[in-house]
Amino acid sequence: MAEPLFDRIALVGIGLIGSSLARVIRREGLAKHVAISSRSETTLKRAESLALGDSFHADARDAVRDADLVIVSVPVGASGAVAAELAPALKPGAILTDVGSTKASVIAQMAPHVPAGVHFIPGHPIAGTEHSGPDAGFAELFENRWCILTPLPGSDPEAVEKLAAFWRRAGSNIDTMDPQHHDKVLAIVSHLPHIIAYNIVGTADDLEAVTKSEVIKYSASGFRDFTRLAASDPTMWRDVCLHNKDAILEMLARFSEDLAFLQRAIRWGEGDKLFEMFTRTRAVRRSIIEAGQEIDAPDFGRHVAAHPEK
Amino acid sequence: MAEPLFDRIALVGIGLIGSSLARVIRREGLAKHVAISSRSETTLKRAESLALGDSFHADARDAVRDADLVIVSVPVGASGAVAAELAPALKPGAILTDVGSTKASVIAQMAPHVPAGVHFIPGHPIAGTEHSGPDAGFAELFENRWCILTPLPGSDPEAVEKLAAFWRRAGSNIDTMDPQHHDKVLAIVSHLPHIIAYNIVGTADDLEAVTKSEVIKYSASGFRDFTRLAASDPTMWRDVCLHNKDAILEMLARFSEDLAFLQRAIRWGEGDKLFEMFTRTRAVRRSIIEAGQEIDAPDFGRHVAAHPEK
Repeated sequence: MAEPLFDRIALVGIGLIGSSLARVIRREGLAKHVAISSRSETTLKRAESLALGDSFHADARDAVRDADLVIVSVPVGASGAVAAELAPALKPGAILTDVGSTKASVIAQMAPHVPAGVHFIPGHPIAGTEHSGPDAGFAELFENRWCILTPLPGSDPEAVEKLAAFWRRAGSNIDTMDPQHHDKVLAIVSHLPHIIAYNIVGTADDLEAVTKSEVIKYSASGFRDFTRLAASDPTMWRDVCLHNKDAILEMLARFSEDLAFLQRAIRWGEGDKLFEMFTRTRAVRRSIIEAGQEIDAPDFGRHVAAHPEK
Repeated sequence: MAEPLFDRIALVGIGLIGSSLARVIRREGLAKHVAISSRSETTLKRAESLALGDSFHADARDAVRDADLVIVSVPVGASGAVAAELAPALKPGAILTDVGSTKASVIAQMAPHVPAGVHFIPGHPIAGTEHSGPDAGFAELFENRWCILTPLPGSDPEAVEKLAAFWRRAGSNIDTMDPQHHDKVLAIVSHLPHIIAYNIVGTADDLEAVTKSEVIKYSASGFRDFTRLAASDPTMWRDVCLHNKDAILEMLARFSEDLAFLQRAIRWGEGDKLFEMFTRTRAVRRSIIEAGQEIDAPDFGRHVAAHPEK
């Protein structure tokens, strides 16, 4: 095993992302000591009984004291309060990062609290599942996924490189971009898909003419795909919607405009327009599979996963 | 192996559904002879080299002659022409069925051509993947899925039961309902999800501020889920849109109305409304998993399918 990258890593928040980090840090030997803190007593106890770290702290300040790397993994709406709380305990020279799905808002909330001499480098691993909490994490979560860093003007290149090295050891590829661009990209690749998924599941749940039991029984014809994203953590997604409002509203407007075009083509029986659009979208999936970002098996490999012995 | 249910089954159309039927008929010994026909010479040749049946016919009439069960598996827009073509060759007492995703339109197209003495019983197996063609089929496709039959007034109950027995032997559960209700149910559980998926992939593909390579790299954050449905057969889905217009337009209107509500909540920062909606939709997925219609593993079991050895 290679040298530990850090003496002490503090994980503030130990849900899906935090606990996946804890597991990969252990597996790869990335720290001599992992200090874990959570606002929720239940979550902290669970993390302790899963032995996710070396020390467990109800007070985030006790976790981050003496830490060389502090990773905040909380819903983006809580970033400001968490930064305010732990800032006074940060060690000079420490790297402070986060994993939030929005970046401009997190920077606006956290940066004002960061003491001089601490390297604040916002980040966002593009990885997750629909499950949440310390039990949901797994060490392979970041493997072959991208991690986007959005360093601030004047960020120390050495600290950025050290954080990038950490994510690479966790299995990720690294990109850097400015926070505004990140928020626009994520609005289309992540935020809009989740909102649309929540919405369609809500629409189906509200029907009178089709029963809930029918929706469930026949869901394998398409609907069930959407229920996965729509089963994601409500607190996280409420916060994303509130904290990336402008980019999300822009993408929603484009989506609705395109949908109106499609709807009109259906109403007027314009088969050629439908065919053209349904053909063009096929290529996008092929590119995603070729880029190694999707499994090359029909139906997300559900059949393989359901019968692993075959 | 149990007795064959039929002496001769004719499969008219040998794409994903037809070729899955061919495979399960073989595995379960459901017929003494399987006759296959396809309009496409390439497809028919491929079916022959895959040895999917016992005889192969460019002319559908040669396949259906003497058949006890004829299963038409073609895009719904082609149902009328296919019925007109093969009707004169149908044997008295034969069962004629289809697998189309819309039922009222298929009945309107096919029924007028069906000779007296032939049992026309429309059907729809709720099963599929995003792949198409004779290579895409597999015998387990119908396992634990529902097959909906929409018998016509005056259908012979014995013939309906025989067709139901066939689908049960292929692994499916059977429901019967009237065609109009089928079309409404499928509009929400299948047609709307596909249209929405095609639409969001189209929207992303059209952006100027976010590059295609960014959409692909970061697609694991939600977007890639939609690309699966959006990679489905364009001909099939064009026809579905054209042939279930009213129900689809109704569901689209409801969806857009709900989306406007969500959009407004985002614009005005109404976190409680967002949280309430994002919470309610979680339960739907749980029910689908409990009903055995979805895999009980995070991320559709992608991780398991990608590493079956673990």
